[in-house]
Amino acid sequence: MNEATREKLTNVSVATLATALYKRGLRHQVIQGVHPIGWKGKNMVGPAFTLRYMPAREDRNQLTEFRNPQHPQRVAIETCPEGHVLVMDSRKQADAASAGDILIRRLMKRGGAGVVTDGGFRDAAVIADLEIPAYHTRPSSPTNLTNNEAIAINEPIGCGDAPVFPGDVIVGDADCVIVIPAEIADEVADEAVEMTVYEDFVVEQVMNEGQAIIGLYPCTKDENREKFEAWRKAQGR
Amino acid sequence: MNEATREKLTNVSVATLATALYKRGLRHQVIQGVHPIGWKGKNMVGPAFTLRYMPAREDRNQLTEFRNPQHPQRVAIETCPEGHVLVMDSRKQADAASAGDILIRRLMKRGGAGVVTDGGFRDAAVIADLEIPAYHTRPSSPTNLTNNEAIAINEPIGCGDAPVFPGDVIVGDADCVIVIPAEIADEVADEAVEMTVYEDFVVEQVMNEGQAIIGLYPCTKDENREKFEAWRKAQGR
Amino acid sequence: MNEATREKLTNVSVATLATALYKRGLRHQVIQGVHPIGWKGKNMVGPAFTLRYMPAREDRNQLTEFRNPQHPQRVAIETCPEGHVLVMDSRKQADAASAGDILIRRLMKRGGAGVVTDGGFRDAAVIADLEIPAYHTRPSSPTNLTNNEAIAINEPIGCGDAPVFPGDVIVGDADCVIVIPAEIADEVADEAVEMTVYEDFVVEQVMNEGQAIIGLYPCTKDENREKFEAWRKAQGR
Amino acid sequence: MNEATREKLTNVSVATLATALYKRGLRHQVIQGVHPIGWKGKNMVGPAFTLRYMPAREDRNQLTEFRNPQHPQRVAIETCPEGHVLVMDSRKQADAASAGDILIRRLMKRGGAGVVTDGGFRDAAVIADLEIPAYHTRPSSPTNLTNNEAIAINEPIGCGDAPVFPGDVIVGDADCVIVIPAEIADEVADEAVEMTVYEDFVVEQVMNEGQAIIGLYPCTKDENREKFEAWRKAQGR
Amino acid sequence: MNEATREKLTNVSVATLATALYKRGLRHQVIQGVHPIGWKGKNMVGPAFTLRYMPAREDRNQLTEFRNPQHPQRVAIETCPEGHVLVMDSRKQADAASAGDILIRRLMKRGGAGVVTDGGFRDAAVIADLEIPAYHTRPSSPTNLTNNEAIAINEPIGCGDAPVFPGDVIVGDADCVIVIPAEIADEVADEAVEMTVYEDFVVEQVMNEGQAIIGLYPCTKDENREKFEAWRKAQGR
Amino acid sequence: MNEATREKLTNVSVATLATALYKRGLRHQVIQGVHPIGWKGKNMVGPAFTLRYMPAREDRNQLTEFRNPQHPQRVAIETCPEGHVLVMDSRKQADAASAGDILIRRLMKRGGAGVVTDGGFRDAAVIADLEIPAYHTRPSSPTNLTNNEAIAINEPIGCGDAPVFPGDVIVGDADCVIVIPAEIADEVADEAVEMTVYEDFVVEQVMNEGQAIIGLYPCTKDENREKFEAWRKAQGR
Repeated sequence: MNEATREKLTNVSVATLATALYKRGLRHQVIQGVHPIGWKGKNMVGPAFTLRYMPAREDRNQLTEFRNPQHPQRVAIETCPEGHVLVMDSRKQADAASAGDILIRRLMKRGGAGVVTDGGFRDAAVIADLEIPAYHTRPSSPTNLTNNEAIAINEPIGCGDAPVFPGDVIVGDADCVIVIPAEIADEVADEAVEMTVYEDFVVEQVMNEGQAIIGLYPCTKDENREKFEAWRKAQGR
Repeated sequence: MNEATREKLTNVSVATLATALYKRGLRHQVIQGVHPIGWKGKNMVGPAFTLRYMPAREDRNQLTEFRNPQHPQRVAIETCPEGHVLVMDSRKQADAASAGDILIRRLMKRGGAGVVTDGGFRDAAVIADLEIPAYHTRPSSPTNLTNNEAIAINEPIGCGDAPVFPGDVIVGDADCVIVIPAEIADEVADEAVEMTVYEDFVVEQVMNEGQAIIGLYPCTKDENREKFEAWRKAQGR
Repeated sequence: MNEATREKLTNVSVATLATALYKRGLRHQVIQGVHPIGWKGKNMVGPAFTLRYMPAREDRNQLTEFRNPQHPQRVAIETCPEGHVLVMDSRKQADAASAGDILIRRLMKRGGAGVVTDGGFRDAAVIADLEIPAYHTRPSSPTNLTNNEAIAINEPIGCGDAPVFPGDVIVGDADCVIVIPAEIADEVADEAVEMTVYEDFVVEQVMNEGQAIIGLYPCTKDENREKFEAWRKAQGR
Repeated sequence: MNEATREKLTNVSVATLATALYKRGLRHQVIQGVHPIGWKGKNMVGPAFTLRYMPAREDRNQLTEFRNPQHPQRVAIETCPEGHVLVMDSRKQADAASAGDILIRRLMKRGGAGVVTDGGFRDAAVIADLEIPAYHTRPSSPTNLTNNEAIAINEPIGCGDAPVFPGDVIVGDADCVIVIPAEIADEVADEAVEMTVYEDFVVEQVMNEGQAIIGLYPCTKDENREKFEAWRKAQGR
Repeated sequence: MNEATREKLTNVSVATLATALYKRGLRHQVIQGVHPIGWKGKNMVGPAFTLRYMPAREDRNQLTEFRNPQHPQRVAIETCPEGHVLVMDSRKQADAASAGDILIRRLMKRGGAGVVTDGGFRDAAVIADLEIPAYHTRPSSPTNLTNNEAIAINEPIGCGDAPVFPGDVIVGDADCVIVIPAEIADEVADEAVEMTVYEDFVVEQVMNEGQAIIGLYPCTKDENREKFEAWRKAQGR
Repeated sequence: MNEATREKLTNVSVATLATALYKRGLRHQVIQGVHPIGWKGKNMVGPAFTLRYMPAREDRNQLTEFRNPQHPQRVAIETCPEGHVLVMDSRKQADAASAGDILIRRLMKRGGAGVVTDGGFRDAAVIADLEIPAYHTRPSSPTNLTNNEAIAINEPIGCGDAPVFPGDVIVGDADCVIVIPAEIADEVADEAVEMTVYEDFVVEQVMNEGQAIIGLYPCTKDENREKFEAWRKAQGR
């Protein structure tokens, strides 16, 4: 992905991005129900590389399956491109793990930009301390074989009821994770940066000037627009 | 599939099949939460042909999408092989329809053996009167575009939390639908037929002879085994 | 409401209406999770008259409350205008009743066009035999006082996650109930009648002519359009 | 139980009983989420005999367990006293069966008054035709061993979030099932019969006299009380 | 509200208040499912000022709606009286935000005593650092327009299944939020203070004296009552 | 329990234990949905002592019930053996408390090894600071009488959908809680210690040597086995 876009997306909130997508008629791009494991203070940004789980059939999901060098979960970890976010469709099933700290360590060492599941991770307390962003619904210790079989890599999937196509740009902040369609990532990043400048101005007005929000947020008064332009210039943004 | 197997599976219950699979360590093969629309008095039997839905992204799911001759939902209906059951992974989402009566009529005319979704069908009251078995969770009138995009045909999928591989044998009765792995369908059919003979004997004993179930179901007494053998011979089964 | 519109809406399906609203960007107008109690073979149609429930506080919801002639549940029944559908926001709570057969009998006698709750009715088996359409989620015997207090009449409400404004046109068929914004009810009715003619043609083509759906539904081929026009003329529709 | 009470409870509705219990401060006695399998036109009435399930541990729940003559599920069927209702605490888990038609046939032959589970039964379509009332949440074909172990007989349990003590009187009608504490069953039955007489009068007034419900239901006007007394005398009730 | 009452309620736990209301027959006054965002170490206390959301209809909930100076969400923020807690009925819908940090900053500057939603807030990580108590179910970045329309101010509402009337006293601690009916707030506050003194004594007895809880909590032994009186005097409480 | 086993279980993760049980065919031993209240940095380990709740009937659950010296909740606290973990089957109901800080303090003083409920605790913020491990689903202030009645001590129960027999060994870490059948606790502890040594080696290889996981985790290459043996010797483990 465009590195300038990556940089921009590192400095805006998922809320702002959600509003920018809403303007474009995209209303369900936030991955519902996930949160960061040990928020690391910086947005997760990267194109999606996907793994799809299906319900596990017991005969196909004995522990020995992990000895198979083609096991899709393991292969996904070893083939996720650098700078990408591994997004797992775990069928919103958190009663067993989508992965654990060892796989996520490996993903980190390979340069992964982050990992998201709509299930849960085992070893979550360990993952919280790793230098890679990870999002899930809750800690879950049982092996993924218990109820999920990793079946396909880099297909279009659902994650937390959001549609995820390989290459879509994934952004996670302290609150949520959002999926930006690849083809509009650059323009959305630009717009979000603009929106953020205005929001910073609004915060300043509300906190320091005691301004009311009506007429200010959104801006419907000329005088606020003028104030903003002056403030922006003063801020050099 | 083997026609003798198809015939056998037409005459056993999903409960009996579930027990036969349970013996083999397969405990989650029943598609949870679905029921027949207008039970037609005869089991649905056929190999699975699958359709996978993912969450809908609004820009890709305008009504005009149905004009696309490659739309996977329409293509699935037109390519499902005769005698097969079309199984849809609708992500257990019944707030919008997986299909409606027109598509199901067409599937019927093409020789489909049945249709299952873990979502809901629109025009369910009409489907109830068609000569094709259909199973869903509840009637649902909104078009599938509302929250699902048909994305892939004949992949391994989940349906009602059961794993479904293309070619697995699907059997539905008045209660439930079950997925029999293709490679064991013949032996499971044989075993289920055997089990059914014994169950019929048990019903006869309980209803007409006033027998207790302990020692009879399952059979743990020699005298019951002997009675059964005599009864079976008399029945010519 | 316009009587011609009422008549038209009596003869189209909620599925068709849902698609007509979808074209207009309205995707969540179906009241989720309700079904008819004893389908009476004819659509329910009428403008919405609403009742809002809130969680019950025990001291305000003793049985003696029903002695109050101003009790909003009772008042709603006695003031719902003739030809209107009483729509209840029961907070999707079906553990206690929204109403029972006596109130619904009275509503029927007063000329109510139907009743919908996103909770459940008590005496549902009796209601099934009354000559008034009624929709709910499941039978529920406890008195509404148990967990709901009727608090307001004819406010905008939610019902089954659909928005309902007083006067919106409510249509229920054998499958579902939909809410048509009052201001577009006439045009939507017209469009749905038109769509229904074409759908009838499609059914005829699929069932009797063995036509494939691609190119036919929706119509993307000139030859199908011509066939339709001929068929329509022949049908006199 | 008192046979006069049994007779009275056969002719009143669960809704009326729920209101009678509500007056006594008992608000959660309806077993939530269950419905009759093939409503047989007559109330189920009898004292509770209970079976408690707990989550299944795989090593304790192989099919061979049913060979154990002490298996609590089988023992419950063979020891439930005549005229009693077998109530199963299946932990509201309907993904596997609480029992099937063979056990329920046996219970029927032994004189059981009915059976209730807050899970599901297998062979539900068969059970629908048996001459014993049965209530569940939905058909479920997998054997109960899949997720439940029958662990204890005739303990106090929960069923559908209602408290059930052995001996409590269970009443089921076409809508719901209610649990009447044993010690107040007689007085509640009497009161419900009285309430039913008045409700019948109200129905007559609403349907034939066009009366409004305010002042009538509940009765807050002397004139209605007088009318009722006259009507009652005329009816000989 | 009475300032002495406010002070008392600042120093008791919601658990103690829940028990005081339970004694009065009020069992469902805790707002279920919410927790503090960044617990600030001090109870939230204030009379309720309410905002009601209903399901969003797309045509009424475009981003431009926020330009309307009468938008109820914005108006609620600008009219919530000083010292009051803004309580939002978001229909327990957390897939989109009830509000974000800018509105909550404004509420804080206007002297709001706190804010509660049974949905989620966007910018939750920012809100965690503001000097105003805020309670929600989980962070949620999408704009509220996505699934909710702010429709009415200061009506009786439900929040997390608890009834909330304008003016009821809202108290939130590190665990939960409770709704005290306005008319009993003073007496409940007094009683809770009394109960807290005794609970503190119990803690002291359990931790330092190794006392058993039976006979102590609640107090059923004279000797414990005497010990308590002595301790209380010594503590000067 | 065996003190060596206790020590071993203190130093392995629930994830590792879950895998060791999975090998033995036990797939559902993790208590779903619970997390530690204020993780104290050290595993909770001890045999289970159980308390079973059933739905509360209002007349049996007035506040005065706690004055009964035989109240099972209080008795459980006072009789739980030293070193044991008190496990509560709260029916996964967290709308009211399973217990509060006073009871848990007493359990701690009596030498309890920990406490688990599949409901919620009141005073959770206080419990977080106590020197006893406690696990629940969420804070919940209402008294347990609101919806649960403590009914039986040390029966087999379910907790978070896991089967718990008295004496089973309970282990909780920062993520989850698992139930090890008493009869295999020693061998599972041994195996988990072994597995942990290998996992530590894997972490070292992944983090410091940049090894891929395929062939390493699980070990399917001789060279990795040799490396491990050498590393293990060097580590003196």
